[in-house]
Amino acid sequence: MTEKKTTNIILFSGDYDKAMAAYIIANGAAAYDHEVTIFHTFWGLNALRKDEHIPVKKGFMEKMFGKMMPRGSDKMGLSSMNFAGFGPKMIKGVMKKHNVMPLPQLIEMAQEQDIKLVACTMTMDLLGLQKEELLDNIEYAGVAAYLADAEDGNVNLFI
Amino acid sequence: MTEKKTTNIILFSGDYDKAMAAYIIANGAAAYDHEVTIFHTFWGLNALRKDEHIPVKKGFMEKMFGKMMPRGSDKMGLSSMNFAGFGPKMIKGVMKKHNVMPLPQLIEMAQEQDIKLVACTMTMDLLGLQKEELLDNIEYAGVAAYLADAEDGNVNLFI
Amino acid sequence: MTEKKTTNIILFSGDYDKAMAAYIIANGAAAYDHEVTIFHTFWGLNALRKDEHIPVKKGFMEKMFGKMMPRGSDKMGLSSMNFAGFGPKMIKGVMKKHNVMPLPQLIEMAQEQDIKLVACTMTMDLLGLQKEELLDNIEYAGVAAYLADAEDGNVNLFI
Repeated sequence: MTEKKTTNIILFSGDYDKAMAAYIIANGAAAYDHEVTIFHTFWGLNALRKDEHIPVKKGFMEKMFGKMMPRGSDKMGLSSMNFAGFGPKMIKGVMKKHNVMPLPQLIEMAQEQDIKLVACTMTMDLLGLQKEELLDNIEYAGVAAYLADAEDGNVNLFI
Repeated sequence: MTEKKTTNIILFSGDYDKAMAAYIIANGAAAYDHEVTIFHTFWGLNALRKDEHIPVKKGFMEKMFGKMMPRGSDKMGLSSMNFAGFGPKMIKGVMKKHNVMPLPQLIEMAQEQDIKLVACTMTMDLLGLQKEELLDNIEYAGVAAYLADAEDGNVNLFI
Repeated sequence: MTEKKTTNIILFSGDYDKAMAAYIIANGAAAYDHEVTIFHTFWGLNALRKDEHIPVKKGFMEKMFGKMMPRGSDKMGLSSMNFAGFGPKMIKGVMKKHNVMPLPQLIEMAQEQDIKLVACTMTMDLLGLQKEELLDNIEYAGVAAYLADAEDGNVNLFI
């Protein structure tokens, strides 16, 4: 019996370009028959937010974080050359021209390929994000679950 | 004879949130009986700085770096939404509310769990940091020592 | 037959200090007889740009990216304390004083040690970078080639 190889990515960053890199590697690894997990923590959770407003009860701080953070992957900024939102427009322009899949589609593709998308419950609490606000069909876990996957992983990355 | 699994983290970043992620993973791995090393390089060295002023002789450049960099983990900023220091206050507020350990305690816990905290000697030279300014009971090493640990590591991360 | 250990670094960042860390680890690993690959993607491609202006035909967006991004490793900024270009001057000053190799020499050394420098073709398209603009003697590949190397790698890092 040969075990499947695994790829385990921690997506910490809330930048559009870094999340793209994470999802491109993840989709590639799934195509190579790896078992793939993306563990979303801190600002990386924003890639899992639904783009509509979801009415949920929150404390004051949590409401502020919710308002200031991008609602969904399409609204995330760039890690470099963001230029107050002009950079993402430029990147999306050249992506379209070169037929590169935009981030929301990369995430859809990951779900279709059975990549395990995990939201870190501890940082959901910190940033005041609730399950209703995140995409459907994802999992919820903590650092213990990440380590259980990663300790036998082939490709482990922190992005 | 089964060997212990190992986790080897390079902490390059001087951001409060990234250092938190590093120390939460490290403490988790130690609880799972991994041998854990955090190799602090560049801005990550600031997590090891003592919070008081330590009088040491320095060149002009080294003095400037010393003044501009945060003195200790509690004074570090956020990688995202820092808002000139307001972001860290918000995060620390919600951390307290949700009983999440602040960074200085996470570092103490790491030392209690015998996690090896290493300061990169080459970047200490560059940033003009001296042993007297860093926490007690840490180790000093270079990239060769990191590689010797990491080449047989289970979870290797660059944060 | 014992196989060589391998180190596989994704250099995503276009920051001088992060690229330095990547190349110092890579050169160290090569000295330890690892097979080493640095896969340059997104802003990390700038480390491979030649420093002179290379006349090539480009679309409008690609021309803008080309103008705004640093031309070559020596012109890259810092991830922290950049201070509009003053930070890199300071760092280079202390590097000289402490005999630390500047980034362009670290890259030369990597080529002399037969480290495989790869440019990600997909992000070259996005940023409008053409082969003529990048260093000689590098390779061109995509995420599939990265994964083929990394899935059996010893030290895999995303920088």
